[in-house]
Amino acid sequence: MRIYDIIAKKRDGFELTDEEIAFFVRGCTDKSIVDYQTTALLMAIYLNGMTDREMITLTNEMAHSGDMLDLSSIQGITADKHSTGGVGDKTTLIVAPIVASCGVKIAKLSGRGLGHTGGTVDKLEAIDGFRVSLSPEEFICQVNEIGICVTGQTGNLAPADKIIYGLRDATATVGSIPLIASSIMSKKLAAGAECIVLDVKAGSGAFMKTLDEAKALSQKMIDIGKANGRKMAAVLSDMDTPLGKNIGNTLEVIEAVDVLKGGVQSDLTEVCVVLASNILSLAKAISLDEAEKQVRRSLSDGSAYEAFKALVKAQGGDTSLIENTDRFKKAAFYREVPSPADSYISSMNAETIGLSSVVLGAGRKTKEDVIDYTAGIILEKKTGEEVKKGEVLARLYTNNADSLDESERMLLSALKFSKEKPVAKPLIYDVMR
Amino acid sequence: MRIYDIIAKKRDGFELTDEEIAFFVRGCTDKSIVDYQTTALLMAIYLNGMTDREMITLTNEMAHSGDMLDLSSIQGITADKHSTGGVGDKTTLIVAPIVASCGVKIAKLSGRGLGHTGGTVDKLEAIDGFRVSLSPEEFICQVNEIGICVTGQTGNLAPADKIIYGLRDATATVGSIPLIASSIMSKKLAAGAECIVLDVKAGSGAFMKTLDEAKALSQKMIDIGKANGRKMAAVLSDMDTPLGKNIGNTLEVIEAVDVLKGGVQSDLTEVCVVLASNILSLAKAISLDEAEKQVRRSLSDGSAYEAFKALVKAQGGDTSLIENTDRFKKAAFYREVPSPADSYISSMNAETIGLSSVVLGAGRKTKEDVIDYTAGIILEKKTGEEVKKGEVLARLYTNNADSLDESERMLLSALKFSKEKPVAKPLIYDVMR
Repeated sequence: MRIYDIIAKKRDGFELTDEEIAFFVRGCTDKSIVDYQTTALLMAIYLNGMTDREMITLTNEMAHSGDMLDLSSIQGITADKHSTGGVGDKTTLIVAPIVASCGVKIAKLSGRGLGHTGGTVDKLEAIDGFRVSLSPEEFICQVNEIGICVTGQTGNLAPADKIIYGLRDATATVGSIPLIASSIMSKKLAAGAECIVLDVKAGSGAFMKTLDEAKALSQKMIDIGKANGRKMAAVLSDMDTPLGKNIGNTLEVIEAVDVLKGGVQSDLTEVCVVLASNILSLAKAISLDEAEKQVRRSLSDGSAYEAFKALVKAQGGDTSLIENTDRFKKAAFYREVPSPADSYISSMNAETIGLSSVVLGAGRKTKEDVIDYTAGIILEKKTGEEVKKGEVLARLYTNNADSLDESERMLLSALKFSKEKPVAKPLIYDVMR
Repeated sequence: MRIYDIIAKKRDGFELTDEEIAFFVRGCTDKSIVDYQTTALLMAIYLNGMTDREMITLTNEMAHSGDMLDLSSIQGITADKHSTGGVGDKTTLIVAPIVASCGVKIAKLSGRGLGHTGGTVDKLEAIDGFRVSLSPEEFICQVNEIGICVTGQTGNLAPADKIIYGLRDATATVGSIPLIASSIMSKKLAAGAECIVLDVKAGSGAFMKTLDEAKALSQKMIDIGKANGRKMAAVLSDMDTPLGKNIGNTLEVIEAVDVLKGGVQSDLTEVCVVLASNILSLAKAISLDEAEKQVRRSLSDGSAYEAFKALVKAQGGDTSLIENTDRFKKAAFYREVPSPADSYISSMNAETIGLSSVVLGAGRKTKEDVIDYTAGIILEKKTGEEVKKGEVLARLYTNNADSLDESERMLLSALKFSKEKPVAKPLIYDVMR
């Protein structure tokens, strides 16, 4: 078998065999296929697509290119969630403890942020002492002991995906639905959980800008998971507007703790309740209504909050910060952004707002950048709200005073104002199973 | 400017600006653009095409990526020919001396063979002592002195094309008309001749399998040349059947000398007369009829033959071999291939016949292979001819006796027989200017 012939076949729009896909994935992992042949094939896949069978085979080959976590020693059913990424998306910090406190084991691997989107691993590292590098043994042991673990990648999971993703990222071949679906699902399959709930974002701050694209991606990921015997659901939620009020690592932990302590009713709470209810419903085979009751009870009776503290403690984090979030280190510089007029906020460009937080130091422009955990933005007003001229729209936090002007300018450029109250858009578009 | 954005633009089917194409060509020449980004762009170009303006800019940027030969010190008009390659194609050895003997300067750079197609440089090297590596100064000086020079690549011509072609060859992106046209024409523009006549082959032994493809490619190359002020013509000729009788380096030199000595009427002679007449007609601005008269006279009066001997002598070759071709070294092993039946030859697959000569040692499977100059095939019968059972179809020559069985098997598999005399196909399909 020759990679040349495989490239030519896909170039001409033909379907690759399982053997050809396996040859490709193994070859780019062991470097017997050179990168410049891999990227030619990736562009041909981007432009000519993949059938569902090709996509499922690609996913499985990438999943099996490294370790497959064996969670069979964990008592009870295991669940994982995955978000396609957005701005202010701290749902894992809330959903994972809710679900664990309701008796479903959360075995979750998370990633870091890049560009306008944040990553759960960075947020957890904002808690002093929190360890995000656990061995597979520590990971499984902690899930068995306290029912929850959230760590960075452990073991050598899906190395083929890492190589292929890196090449896609450099060659404008990221935005292909079969390639995105197989990349995400290869890691989820390797991570081993039985139930997988996907939080697929649509809108200006999401990778999928339209609901149609988000639905298409969700269906493909559900198909891949089901073909591998996993229980699957996808929640399609809005990412036209950042989720919640806080953007930036420490600020997002604080907002998550506030929700976990109960009593906060916000867009963030609602998305977390829907995600957690779907996981419980799938894992326990109960109705969504019954699942939602359990979820809301875990927030109101403090059990979700206790599960989060147990998570922080188990991974070495300073729980006193969670008990009193005023103790978190604060940024040296602060600015209020006032409203330029009496008006309604008619829309917010979530991506631009995310990038304005990156300017403050809250995120990474490139993988090598160092994050300022204390930096970020609190949005005091969001889409649909009325504001008076001079009223505070947002608060900026940073240790780099020079960044404030640019961040403010970007933030304001992301907002659109109108005299009329805009029509409210749904927060949850759909749930697919 | 970022190569990522250029890849994304072509991926989405948009036209690249001149600046973007220049950035790409310079970047892949100085290696500031990595190969895996180049190949992603090449696949996007293969699948989404290029406008004529993009193709002309790409050609010029590749031509100017290295030395541009300055032929202005040559007295009189300079001409070059290029063949898209075929089996048994020794036309340069005949056309160049004809044209030179008629007073038009031939400044011709040639290449080596690969796969089923041969290369002029290899054929010339079959003549003991013939030097195919000349400096640009030697090249220009020889053209001025004797009116003809045929050498391998001189100076650093179109290095960008060399890099890009190598990557296309490894990633199944060779067969794109704008990429083929720009690759050929970048070298022709850099080589400096004022008149360029293209011999574009169509058929089983050619790169372009159909006449439509060959015409499309010809038109693009003519457009590029004219946009650069060159006088252009393209002869579309058949390569369904090998050209002439002999395939293999020494054997082809011998057949060329026979034609140059005059009196041989064959398909080879006819193609050479058409090519040479077109060059003369363009260069001297005379009618094709008048040009053909001069061409036929140069064959019959021995002036073409003398010009070839002058070429061989000037480049250090042993002219006694030309004067008496029986003196060429012969292969150690020889086999006659008999006809299996009383029949007509209804077709020959030229590519398979070319490959059967490669098996004997006459060509290269990979760039690193060493050629056996004496190896090759003499076709005693060609398409349309009647054969008796047992009559000799072809003669095989090699220094590797083990190759004879495989070569014979391949050769026979390339022939189709029929009881009826097949309809004759044209040798020259068209001439485009």
